[in-house]
Amino acid sequence: MDNEIIEYLSRYVPISKEMEKALIESTFIKTYKKGTILLEEGQLSNECYFIFKGCIRSYYVKNEEEKTIEFYTEEEAVTPSAFGKNTPSEYYVECIEETLAGVGTPGQEAEMFVKFPQLESLIRAFGEAVIAKQQDTIAEFKMSSPEERYLQLVKNRSDLIQRVPQHQIASYLGIKPESLSRIRKRLIKS
Amino acid sequence: MDNEIIEYLSRYVPISKEMEKALIESTFIKTYKKGTILLEEGQLSNECYFIFKGCIRSYYVKNEEEKTIEFYTEEEAVTPSAFGKNTPSEYYVECIEETLAGVGTPGQEAEMFVKFPQLESLIRAFGEAVIAKQQDTIAEFKMSSPEERYLQLVKNRSDLIQRVPQHQIASYLGIKPESLSRIRKRLIKS
Repeated sequence: MDNEIIEYLSRYVPISKEMEKALIESTFIKTYKKGTILLEEGQLSNECYFIFKGCIRSYYVKNEEEKTIEFYTEEEAVTPSAFGKNTPSEYYVECIEETLAGVGTPGQEAEMFVKFPQLESLIRAFGEAVIAKQQDTIAEFKMSSPEERYLQLVKNRSDLIQRVPQHQIASYLGIKPESLSRIRKRLIKS
Repeated sequence: MDNEIIEYLSRYVPISKEMEKALIESTFIKTYKKGTILLEEGQLSNECYFIFKGCIRSYYVKNEEEKTIEFYTEEEAVTPSAFGKNTPSEYYVECIEETLAGVGTPGQEAEMFVKFPQLESLIRAFGEAVIAKQQDTIAEFKMSSPEERYLQLVKNRSDLIQRVPQHQIASYLGIKPESLSRIRKRLIKS
């Protein structure tokens, strides 16, 4: 598994032997059972994750209802908003499949940045990519009807449709499960 | 104006005299008239902005309609998704007030990062703050009714209500101008 992190990172920055060794030594790899809550609302966040295999979901709870914010799958990083800060998380992070992930901590991150400044450049570049992607998400949400949003999801992340329960897909799209059923039926007919 | 950038940055990282000098020398400060289009859909983006005074809006055009993504005001940075990349912008960036801004370019950014690695740490930290803020925006959008979204805006960015035309506020909230009028009337009555 270590090689996967190295291979992934080496697509973006040259990884020296020394950096490879430090990364392997400091990254903690763990398997989480399906249903594991990695972070709860109100808790401090001291871990970020890089998914090798599995699926992680972030969600808010409002009026006793879960509102799904994002799904993360293979080769995606999950860094909670509260990671490394002194403020409690406003949302939950849950493994919705058995998940194999590399686990990072604020201390490890700071240490690696001092030793390997090029890693910080990489994280900055990743951050910019995430910002651009989120901007697209916000834009798409404002510009699309629920049906268009569903079609986009089918087009861009068709694996999620198979992997994730329908009611979570519905809350991710910002609609009620009944509305999603209606949209699906309409699309099958047409 | 230079001092404002320095003062702003020094809240986050220590700014040496040398760094201060390099920043002042390399930052280009410019005044844009109201209505200036800083970036068009289809263009490459070679400038980012730090607003000293004024208001910048980003928007998509879909089916000949403008969909407002974000408003940026004093002490906010505007970095288009396409900044420094070789892909054309998918949206427009416009000054909706006369705007005084510091202008950065990809070359300047790269040069400053090499000279002052602590600046890259700062930009990474900024990036993380932006990611967290966007995540909140996405969450709020999914969790709220249009009326709740409007109330949030009044609470969090009341200046925008005064500064920005109503139809742009409506598209920012993802609703039609008529719906916004109805919401406002209902709130005044209650």
